[in-house]
Amino acid sequence: MKIAIDAMGGDYAPEATVNGALLARKLWGIESILVGDEATIKPLLLDAKEEMEIVSAREAIGFDEHPLKAIRQKKDASIVVAAKLVDSGKASALVAAGSTGAAMAASLLTYGRLQGIDRPAIAFPLPTLKGMSLVLDGGANPEASWQNLVDFALLGSIYMEKVMGICKPKVALLNIGEEEIKGTPEVIEAYQKLKQSDLNFKGNIEARDIISGNADVIVCSGFVGNIVLKYTEGLATGLFTMVKEAMLSNLKGKIGGLLVKDNLRVLKARLDYSEYGGAPLLGLKNLTLISHGSSDAKAVANALRVANTASEKKIMEITKEALEKRAIT
Amino acid sequence: MKIAIDAMGGDYAPEATVNGALLARKLWGIESILVGDEATIKPLLLDAKEEMEIVSAREAIGFDEHPLKAIRQKKDASIVVAAKLVDSGKASALVAAGSTGAAMAASLLTYGRLQGIDRPAIAFPLPTLKGMSLVLDGGANPEASWQNLVDFALLGSIYMEKVMGICKPKVALLNIGEEEIKGTPEVIEAYQKLKQSDLNFKGNIEARDIISGNADVIVCSGFVGNIVLKYTEGLATGLFTMVKEAMLSNLKGKIGGLLVKDNLRVLKARLDYSEYGGAPLLGLKNLTLISHGSSDAKAVANALRVANTASEKKIMEITKEALEKRAIT
Repeated sequence: MKIAIDAMGGDYAPEATVNGALLARKLWGIESILVGDEATIKPLLLDAKEEMEIVSAREAIGFDEHPLKAIRQKKDASIVVAAKLVDSGKASALVAAGSTGAAMAASLLTYGRLQGIDRPAIAFPLPTLKGMSLVLDGGANPEASWQNLVDFALLGSIYMEKVMGICKPKVALLNIGEEEIKGTPEVIEAYQKLKQSDLNFKGNIEARDIISGNADVIVCSGFVGNIVLKYTEGLATGLFTMVKEAMLSNLKGKIGGLLVKDNLRVLKARLDYSEYGGAPLLGLKNLTLISHGSSDAKAVANALRVANTASEKKIMEITKEALEKRAIT
Repeated sequence: MKIAIDAMGGDYAPEATVNGALLARKLWGIESILVGDEATIKPLLLDAKEEMEIVSAREAIGFDEHPLKAIRQKKDASIVVAAKLVDSGKASALVAAGSTGAAMAASLLTYGRLQGIDRPAIAFPLPTLKGMSLVLDGGANPEASWQNLVDFALLGSIYMEKVMGICKPKVALLNIGEEEIKGTPEVIEAYQKLKQSDLNFKGNIEARDIISGNADVIVCSGFVGNIVLKYTEGLATGLFTMVKEAMLSNLKGKIGGLLVKDNLRVLKARLDYSEYGGAPLLGLKNLTLISHGSSDAKAVANALRVANTASEKKIMEITKEALEKRAIT
């Protein structure tokens, strides 16, 4: 089935989204439905060998708009129309590179939550020394009850196993100590429940070990997750600035800097999570994958690839089954 | 007045602590009282030109002991004896490089809290692109009420102004968005109270801006602060590993790496917060400064210098006055 993409979302839309969709078709044969302003999209498809489906949406939601308000006022916004395509079964998943808040609001209001999930989470892939860990919640819910944390663990575990191909993903609670008595009451209680669950729960992880990649799924409240997500961005950029300054502080360093420049650029790309297709919204009846706002065509294509894998691996069906099984036991 | 130092605390104690005390005297004329096992300390002072005061303590608390339990069992532990010297007015402040938990427990039980402070905080200096920001709470209290957060703002502001010499320190709440309606109920309420306070409150700061150094005092719960503290350690180390790997991945990079090595070492030292003397415990009736467990003599000397400045600038008296003034208004 095709993947719906909000063609108007993102800093470089619609060029990046349209070219991303073309790239995903060329590389992996993945078909998309471009949702947005036809008059703007069509000229970008002139060189395409085969036709690509366009579904018209006359409005778009910008990064500066209040998500919920915008969703309610702009009934014909591309993100809303795209979510409806998924909800009605015309597309199997949604890729959105525009406002995260708008994508969340449109997805939540259009799809609804999965039975048994009180709060959906935004999960984000975090580069580590070993590859990638999935951190959730990344900011959908500032506060999280122990039930929410247990839900996040289950949702993240299924995503990492089915979509990212990690066998028995290692799940950990982000905490301020390794002992099970550490942390807030919610985290302490979640520890006990996770210990009894059939997830591959490895206990608490301290923030200094996140980068090690020893946990595949890292569970925390949206407040904490959002701090980790944004701090990673800020610190990586800041440290690169510092490294650059340190290199330029004398002649020897300058020459050395020129020689290592290319390698550092590769490293910087590795720290960019677009390679992992973006951040999935988990806990809803359908899948939305949020690609970074500054996504280029390659990042968009990757998001389409991951969304397609999720759909082929039947992640929604598997999640539903796991939740039903949990409700019975 | 002299500064008490737990001579037995830290990975390199008592050599690092004794040599640090000697260094602080040599460089700045700061006098210390070495607290610990006399038989071990004395031989280290053989070369010293002038005598240094030693106060005997027969026990020591290790990093692997349960802080509160150890404090209660080992009445003659060096950290406890040192805290008592401060409490009885024989020393003006305490420097501790041993177990943070033990230093906190000993300080809290020996000094007691300042009137008007419900929860003392551990404040830690975080290197930024502009210099250093003070983050509190760094983990003394996983949860923080809005009152606690407002207290942290006041305590941190006074410390940065009086001890670090920052004029009208800029205070910010660490939050998941800049708008005042963002975050947990506690953070939202603290925002309103801080807006009305006479602190130089700048609103919310997002985690991606921590590294910019735009805020001098960054206020958050102990859970969040501890995550930031440990994530900084982990991410800095991890990124250096990645930078190193990236450099060594080909010949050009290897040669460049050799040339920039020294500059990067300087940068790594800059990211080490020992230069700022360690993390003060704020909100107690006396000052304890926690130096990193791996402190060398220079780091210990810096901690003594900062503790001495805090004492000379009468930080305790000023904090008390500010709290009394607040209670009246």
